[in-house]
Amino acid sequence: MYSEKVMDHFTNPRNVGEIEDASGVGTVGNAKCGDIMRIYLDVDEDTKVIKDCKFKTFGCGAAVATSSMATEMVMGKTIYEALQVTNKAVMEALDGLPPVKVHCSLLAEEAIHAALWDYAQKH
Amino acid sequence: MYSEKVMDHFTNPRNVGEIEDASGVGTVGNAKCGDIMRIYLDVDEDTKVIKDCKFKTFGCGAAVATSSMATEMVMGKTIYEALQVTNKAVMEALDGLPPVKVHCSLLAEEAIHAALWDYAQKH
Ligand code: FES
Repeated sequence: MYSEKVMDHFTNPRNVGEIEDASGVGTVGNAKCGDIMRIYLDVDEDTKVIKDCKFKTFGCGAAVATSSMATEMVMGKTIYEALQVTNKAVMEALDGLPPVKVHCSLLAEEAIHAALWDYAQKH
Repeated sequence: MYSEKVMDHFTNPRNVGEIEDASGVGTVGNAKCGDIMRIYLDVDEDTKVIKDCKFKTFGCGAAVATSSMATEMVMGKTIYEALQVTNKAVMEALDGLPPVKVHCSLLAEEAIHAALWDYAQKH
């Protein structure tokens, strides 16, 4: 049912945690299942490069796997490049997800956008 | 949104894993969210006491917390007593769950019943 990459990122998730004094924080909820996701960004003031990115979620394995992959994909990118990282790209990088789990994967994209928006408002 | 006990069992889940040569294994799926749950039981042949109980799930934090609590609650009980451990009792032990998450908590009860059934069929 799940690809090897999904199982890898689920059982060994990257970038789980919080960032103290993060430059941007985004929290979103999933109306379909009631789960929540929070993403923390540490952005370099001068270069606008994302130096660090962490997530926390109460969501399922699909939410964990997509956030793990998405945080890896935005790390080292500028905030403008990070905005282009779509949910579709994250799912492709994970070799796909079952249709019933696509709504879980949206949490990561939405939380990253919310965190970027939070950063933009503060700066 | 979540009680302290739920957060405790979610962030520090008890009895995660597999049991090799388990006396009973139960696997159930959640039609609502597509998640799966597997429970392993190690039952003493003579006393019918559950000596060990482990779980694995792809489910969300609520599924993790209820399975963690449920495995603790059936451990040391006979298989007959374990059948009486209801989802309601597990939720009460966790100081409740939000309504949207009740369907997740059913996974643990169903998987334990499936594992007990598996044990009964083999013996
Ligand atoms: S079921 Fe809620 S995030 Fe997947």
